[in-house]
Order: sequence, then C-alpha cells, then structure tokens
Amino acid sequence: MVRSHELGFDLIEFSYIDPSQVDVKWLAARLQDLKLDVAISMGLPPEGDISSDDASTVAHGTEILKTAIALTRDLGGTKLAGILSSAHGKQEAALTRKGWDTSVTTFAKVADYAREACVTLNLEVVNRFESNMLNTAAQGMAYIADVGASNVFLHLDTFHMNIEEADVGLAIRHAADKIGYVHIGESHRGYLGTGNIDFAAIFDALVAIGWQDYVTFESFSSAIVDRALSLKTAIWRDLWTDNVALAKHAHSFITLGMETSRLKAELTQKAHLP
Amino acid sequence: MVRSHELGFDLIEFSYIDPSQVDVKWLAARLQDLKLDVAISMGLPPEGDISSDDASTVAHGTEILKTAIALTRDLGGTKLAGILSSAHGKQEAALTRKGWDTSVTTFAKVADYAREACVTLNLEVVNRFESNMLNTAAQGMAYIADVGASNVFLHLDTFHMNIEEADVGLAIRHAADKIGYVHIGESHRGYLGTGNIDFAAIFDALVAIGWQDYVTFESFSSAIVDRALSLKTAIWRDLWTDNVALAKHAHSFITLGMETSRLKAELTQKAHLP
Amino acid sequence: MVRSHELGFDLIEFSYIDPSQVDVKWLAARLQDLKLDVAISMGLPPEGDISSDDASTVAHGTEILKTAIALTRDLGGTKLAGILSSAHGKQEAALTRKGWDTSVTTFAKVADYAREACVTLNLEVVNRFESNMLNTAAQGMAYIADVGASNVFLHLDTFHMNIEEADVGLAIRHAADKIGYVHIGESHRGYLGTGNIDFAAIFDALVAIGWQDYVTFESFSSAIVDRALSLKTAIWRDLWTDNVALAKHAHSFITLGMETSRLKAELTQKAHLP
Amino acid sequence: MVRSHELGFDLIEFSYIDPSQVDVKWLAARLQDLKLDVAISMGLPPEGDISSDDASTVAHGTEILKTAIALTRDLGGTKLAGILSSAHGKQEAALTRKGWDTSVTTFAKVADYAREACVTLNLEVVNRFESNMLNTAAQGMAYIADVGASNVFLHLDTFHMNIEEADVGLAIRHAADKIGYVHIGESHRGYLGTGNIDFAAIFDALVAIGWQDYVTFESFSSAIVDRALSLKTAIWRDLWTDNVALAKHAHSFITLGMETSRLKAELTQKAHLP
Repeated sequence: MVRSHELGFDLIEFSYIDPSQVDVKWLAARLQDLKLDVAISMGLPPEGDISSDDASTVAHGTEILKTAIALTRDLGGTKLAGILSSAHGKQEAALTRKGWDTSVTTFAKVADYAREACVTLNLEVVNRFESNMLNTAAQGMAYIADVGASNVFLHLDTFHMNIEEADVGLAIRHAADKIGYVHIGESHRGYLGTGNIDFAAIFDALVAIGWQDYVTFESFSSAIVDRALSLKTAIWRDLWTDNVALAKHAHSFITLGMETSRLKAELTQKAHLP
Repeated sequence: MVRSHELGFDLIEFSYIDPSQVDVKWLAARLQDLKLDVAISMGLPPEGDISSDDASTVAHGTEILKTAIALTRDLGGTKLAGILSSAHGKQEAALTRKGWDTSVTTFAKVADYAREACVTLNLEVVNRFESNMLNTAAQGMAYIADVGASNVFLHLDTFHMNIEEADVGLAIRHAADKIGYVHIGESHRGYLGTGNIDFAAIFDALVAIGWQDYVTFESFSSAIVDRALSLKTAIWRDLWTDNVALAKHAHSFITLGMETSRLKAELTQKAHLP
Repeated sequence: MVRSHELGFDLIEFSYIDPSQVDVKWLAARLQDLKLDVAISMGLPPEGDISSDDASTVAHGTEILKTAIALTRDLGGTKLAGILSSAHGKQEAALTRKGWDTSVTTFAKVADYAREACVTLNLEVVNRFESNMLNTAAQGMAYIADVGASNVFLHLDTFHMNIEEADVGLAIRHAADKIGYVHIGESHRGYLGTGNIDFAAIFDALVAIGWQDYVTFESFSSAIVDRALSLKTAIWRDLWTDNVALAKHAHSFITLGMETSRLKAELTQKAHLP
Repeated sequence: MVRSHELGFDLIEFSYIDPSQVDVKWLAARLQDLKLDVAISMGLPPEGDISSDDASTVAHGTEILKTAIALTRDLGGTKLAGILSSAHGKQEAALTRKGWDTSVTTFAKVADYAREACVTLNLEVVNRFESNMLNTAAQGMAYIADVGASNVFLHLDTFHMNIEEADVGLAIRHAADKIGYVHIGESHRGYLGTGNIDFAAIFDALVAIGWQDYVTFESFSSAIVDRALSLKTAIWRDLWTDNVALAKHAHSFITLGMETSRLKAELTQKAHLP
C-alpha cells in the first residue's frame, strides 16, 4: 500500500480478502492515512455460481457477494468489481437462458443490498475461458438492462476486450454511461505497450466518453502471484520480476497516454481559422 | 472509360476538361451508354484564386467555376469536386481573414449558380503544400457554415487526411452530414495497402456514418500522368506502370474493405444472448 | 470438401478423425479427385498427455500420435498439426521441467516414426488457456531444438498469437525457418478483419520470410461446430451462421492480403532513381 | 538553450545560422557549459542547388555547405543535417539523371572537406513537396553508395517518412547502418501522439537496429516560427503555443516510447522455459 501511494497511485485494488482473516478496521484506517481509495475485485467460485440451477449454490453465492459488499464498505470503498454474475473459470457448457434469468433475478436483490451500503457493483466482462456469460460489453449492457438497478455498472478490462470485442474503442463508446470500473492490461498481461493492444485507441475512447474516474493497472507474472488466482487466469510465464519497476512504468504509460489523448481530442475540435 | 466500366467501377472522375476542346454531347452519350456516372475534379489556378485581393482574379475564378459547373451538368454529372475555394498549389504566405471572407462571399454566389444546374460543390480538403486554406475537415465545415448554402459539401481524400487530420476516422464522423465526395488514396499515392494509411479505420468510419455514395480511388505515378497535375502534386516516382492491374486491385481492396467494415459494425451491435 | 474445392481452397484440414469410423481409402480417393491437399489437426487428450508423470498416459499419447500420423499418410497428406506435445485444455498447474523433458524425449521417438511416414509434425503454439506448455513461438523453437528432429515444425495460429506474443510479426520472422503450418484466425475467431488483429502486419511477415505454403483459415461459431472441440475452445457465441459466406470472405481476405503485402515488399526494395 | 538543458535534452539543433551574425565562440562556450551537444540543420537555397545545370549555382552551394561544416565544427558539433544534396522547396520539374550525377560528384568533394573537420553529413530524406531528389531512405542509400564517402549518412524524419515510405519500420531497418541522424515529428508536425504516425513501430525499429544516438524532436506551429522556414514547410496552423509544455511532453513521449520498445524487444527474445 505504501508503495502504491508513493508511486503516485490513487486507488489500490484488493483481490477478495476473507474479512475473518484481516483486521478490517486497521486496514481501513491505513488506507485513509495514505489517502488511498480502495476497490475490491473478486470472482464467484463454482460453489457460489448465482447462475446455477441449484438453489443452495445460488444462495451461497448471494452470501459471498453480500459479504464482499460489506467488506468494500467497511474498508471505505464504493466499488465492488470482478466476475459477480456467475462463476470464475473455464466452463464446460454454454450458459442457458435459465441460468441467465436466475443470475439476473438474484443479482437484482444483491444490488438492493449494495445500494444501502453505497457500493456499486461492477460486472467484469471477461474472455471466454474465464466465463461463459459476459464476454462482451454488449452482453454486459443487456444484463444491466435486465437487472434494472441504477448501481450496477460494467467493469471493462482491455486484456479481455482484446480477445472478445470486435472493436475495443467502439465497445467503450457504446457502453459509455454504464462503465463503472476500468482495468488496463496488456494482451499477455505483462508490461503495457509490449504486446498487441492499441492503447492509444483505448485512451482516445476513454477521453471521448469523458472518463474522469480511475484507470486501474493489472498485470500478472508467475514470479509474484496469488496462487489460486494465478491458476484461474493461467499464468505460466514470468513476464516480470520487479513489481515496482512495472508499476512505475504503468503509471507513466497511463498518465502520458491519457494526456496525449486529451491533447488529440482538443485538436480534433479546432477549426484553426485565419 | 470502357475499362473503368469493365473493371466494375460505377463512376469515372475527369480532371477538368476544356469544354471547347471536347465534344461534350458525344462524351455524355458515351457515359450514359456505359451507365457510368461522372464527376469533375479540378483546382483553381493562381489566376483564378477566389480568395485573392484582386477583383479581376476573383471574377476570373468565378467564371472558371461556372464553366466547370455547366460542364458537369452537360456531361450528366451532379458533383463538382476539388480545390474550389482558392488556388491549387504551394502558397507563399498564410491565408488572411480578408482572403477567407472574399472566398466565402464569392463561393455563395457560385453555389446559387450550381443549385440551378443541380450540381453539388465538393470542397476538397488538401494538404498544406497544395493549399493554405482548407487543410482539415474542421476548416471545411467552418467554410461551409460561413457560405450557408445547402449544396456545398466536403470532398475528403485520405492521402491529404493522413498528413493533416489528428484522427482520420473521427474527422469523417464529425463531418458526417457534410461529406459529399470521397477519395481513397494511399499515403504515397500508389497501391492501396502498401503505405501507412489505416484503411480499416477509414472504412469503419464510412460505414459508421452510413456512407452509401461512391468511394473514388485516386493514384498517381510518374509513369502515366497529366503533366500539369503531376507537377502540382509533386509526382516524381513511378509507383506503378500497369494502370489496369492497379485499378483491379483498388476495386477489390475497397469492395472487400467496405464489406468487412459492415460485418464488423453488425458484430459490434449484437449482444449474443443465450 | 466439394465446397472447399469450389471456393478455391487448395487444402482441407480435418480435426482428428477416428480411422475406425471412416473409410480412409475412399476419403483419400475423393481428396485426390478434387486435387485437395489434406492436413490433420488434433489436440492430445488428458489421458494421452505425453508430458505426464504417468508412463501409461505417455504410452497412450504415443499411440494416439502414431495413429494420427498413419491416418495423415493414408489420406495422402504430409502434415500433422495441433497440440501434440501435451494435453489440449485448461491446465490446473504449471508445467514442470520434468514434464518438458518427458515430452521432448517421447516426441523425438514419435518424430522418427513420422519421418518414415513422410509426415511432418507441426506443434501448435496456443494460448495459456488451452495449454501450459507452448504458448509462444520462442518456446516452440526451444522445444524443437531439444527434440532435435528435422521433421518437427511450428504450427502458428494468429488467434493464439494475439494473446501470447509480444510482437506477432517479429515472432513469425524469428521462427521463419521452423514454421511448418499457419492458421489465420481473428481475435474472436469470427470473420477476418472484424476484430483486433493487424492482419496486414502478419501478411507482411509471411511475405518477408518467403512463405509459399498454405495459409489455413480457422473460425468457430456456436452455430456450426464439433461439440467437443467447441467446449475445449470455449465457443459460446454465434459469430456467423453461413459458413459458405464466411469461407468466401476468408478466401478473398487472405488472397488480397498476401497480394498487397507482396506489392508492398517490392516497393520497399525499390530505389526509384532518375 | 538553457530551457532545452533544463528539460532534459542532450542536444540542441540550430537551423542554419549566418556565422557573420553570431558570436560563434561565445555560443560554443555556452553549449559546453550546459553540456549540450549541437547539430546544424539546413536546406540549400535554389541559388545554391548543387544538382543544378548551372556551374556557378553548384559552386555557390558548395561554399554554403563548407561554411556550414565549419560552423558545425566551430560550435563543437559533429553533425550537419538537412537538405544538402539539392534545393529545399517545391520543385517544378522532376530531377534528371544529370542533376543526380552533378550532385553526387559535388557532394563527394564536400564530404572530403567535412572529413577534415570531423563533421558527418546527414542527408535529410524529405517529402515530395520539399525536394524532388531524396524522398525515400532507399533513394538516400543509393545516393550514399554513389558518393562513396564514409562520413555521409541519412537524416531520417518521421513526418516525411509518413508520406513517402511504404513501411517506416522496414525503411529504418533496411537503412540501419547508414542512419546518422533522426527527427521524430508527428504527421501534422504538432504534439507527438496526436496524429497518424505509429510511433511504437518506429521506436521498435530504432531499438531493433541498436540506435544509441540522439532522437531529435521537431515540431512547427504558426505561433512560434522562423518565418522563412515556416513558409518553405507550409506551416499555416497554430497547433500549439506553449513550446515548453510541448517540449516536456515530447521528452516524456520519446523516453517512455524507447524504454517500452526496449522492454518489448527483450520479451521477444525470451523463451520462458520451465
């Protein structure tokens, strides 16, 4: 946390933490001292899949989400993000219409609970190998429309978008008023700019929709990881070892990228008359 | 002309022709036989620059434009395009506000004349070395607003846009309802796809604005040229010699590019729900 | 097959076929009649993973590979491709050094068998969610070096490369003399050109290495699929329904793309002197 | 100069200065105090065109070049750059073979003079509207081969390359061992990253050839300019007004871009074995 703050980051994201294992009050105070905002990101486990045909699985998933919402609130945060509408992981069958409907109905109730906690729910749109439900922003928008709650938004992540979206920039523009959280990650999840993603187009799209909120950097390496998350996300290579150097680079890359896109947007508006 | 028709083109563009040197009636009949639409493209000469401080130069330019409008009409066409608001060529000083105003006032009268001839005027937006007046679509839009005539549009050309626009795709989107004519040309004016222009982004933009009109291919080589135009446009290299092979390639490139962009646009709209 | 031939394709690829279920002789004769070359693509099942610590699993995998080699030969083909060095599917742990070594040693023997059958083995380099072994061309090159057989090559696929490679064009150039088979697929596995892959850069790289061999198009949709393969590859969306329209488009896209890259390569070599 | 130094630049480039108008010794001392390296960039005037058919014009051009070489040396620099082999400006006819030969022969003698002054001559490759001689790196390489002197190199500029080269990255790679000086400029000559140039590809190419020398930023705006140079280069728009903000941005953009390309190059070399 201290490092994140020193490196100029304004928000820290925690993968889901078990509140019974952590002194939440102490952590909340530390975050406030460092003036760091906080978000929680998580993925539902198979045994808590709220799109399941099994009612007890759905009930368990509901409890997990509620606990995560409470944790987010207790840490002083306002954003819960990640794979919240079904299980995180490679699925063995396509989602059914019934599964979609179960998830939507369940999520609407969870959203009510979250509203009281002043927490927004940000549905991560992920690649096909990590979920069979929300793989594109358009699917996420349809889900939000079905849920019908005002505190449900999309959590977009460029690593996933690179695989699933027809046009990453357009997907951001189409979803503009429902984007609640943004992850910037490279195509191979390593250093920004060392893969296949056209980040200039993404920064242009964020500027175009007037994005003023956080842009969170996410990266994985087999060198430094959470073991469980690492296996879910299939991290086999050590794309970096020095996470401070990585974070510094990412901070510069995002800051300069957004600044450049703002300059470009201004330029596209000017007529330059004599 | 026969070749253009056989290769699948629907429109042929002539650089300005002196009507006293050509049998216009015969040519119009031939075009009709081949079911080829026609457009005229031209650039005002220095001695006909309608942004000039010299009234006789402006008057001469007005006559040139009227003659070209009549020729367009008499050939059965409806589009006059090119550098119509000032002289074509490298200028030795920046345009003045007075020059802009003179051009606007003059052009408004020319537009009245064109309206009676059922001809639209399409102002080509060109690079800095060929004009000091309309180098960006935004400048062209401002000029059209000042002229205030409903039959004046922009003639956009990707070769020029590659030099002047901050974002070619956005420039097309911003100017959407005022684009009247489109030239597709590569960054070095040779074979499409063998230079630096991101044509996929351009086809995406044309599809996004619902462009249903012609997409005209333009290319230059020192091997086959109009000498005067070639010098104005600084064509020193023989980028191709076989103009039929070139035209076939361009036809495939544009047709496939537009088809692919339409497929992509459809895909970006689909939610793919279970 | 008839369709593939009629649409102008020169090679058809079969996913692994059980030779006991198919009249191989009849099929081979039909292919010859149509002058269609053939390749077999497959992925080892978990129970035939040749990187396994279990000797009977390795032995089973060896038999599967030998049967596939014989099938390839009996159909009149010379290329076996796909995930041949370990199991196809999402793994639950990183590969160990021991697993790598077991695979290499086993594969060297399989390569001997393939040499006698005049079949090349083309190791598909796939994304992290489909294998934990060969995710990049550089890893594939190291594997080939360790195997030390002259009939082992890489099977590169742009869908996977878009996720794993730092630079797709460079990866192709670096691996040039060991590329044996090429799959062209879009980032979302649908229509070429409707996703995030820079195919011009890929065609440029293929031209740069003097690629004269097949370029095989691969696409998936939930509409028309092999059920088992579809689940392995997590196909949840119907990106297309008309496979003939899809194939026609792909044929044009690849043909025009390679032609354009060849024209571009010629241009980069020319000095255009007076 | 103080500003350039403070902003972190290591080299300052002067457009040609008349040595009779400047206290060269004082300037050289100031540069040394600030530990700033210096380069001179210039374009031959029409009356000093060394490709001319007129012997006195060629002689005059030779004198201009020698004076510039001496100035470069006296300022403590080692690089003379710009349009040195013919006149800077829009030409009215294609270059002839005789013009090429005259230029080559003359330049060989100038190169001898430069060698004694320990100054390299860096031939700027510029767009068609600013010269009819060296528009591509390939043309520049041919010229250098004809001159046959070891202290003659190319001065490449991305603004010009965006118009003329088929592939900017390949052009840099092909010319690798003869590149002596590099200008980074945007397609419209304003802020880097706000136009059409793919700078990541350019930084990748510079890293690929092992470029360790200066990367000089060049930008123009009608707001702050040298009047004569501004007209030659057709600067009509005020793309920026605050040159310090511009320079800061450029410094960050180039530094981060080169760093990112180095990280990417390392990644493309790694096999990441278990």
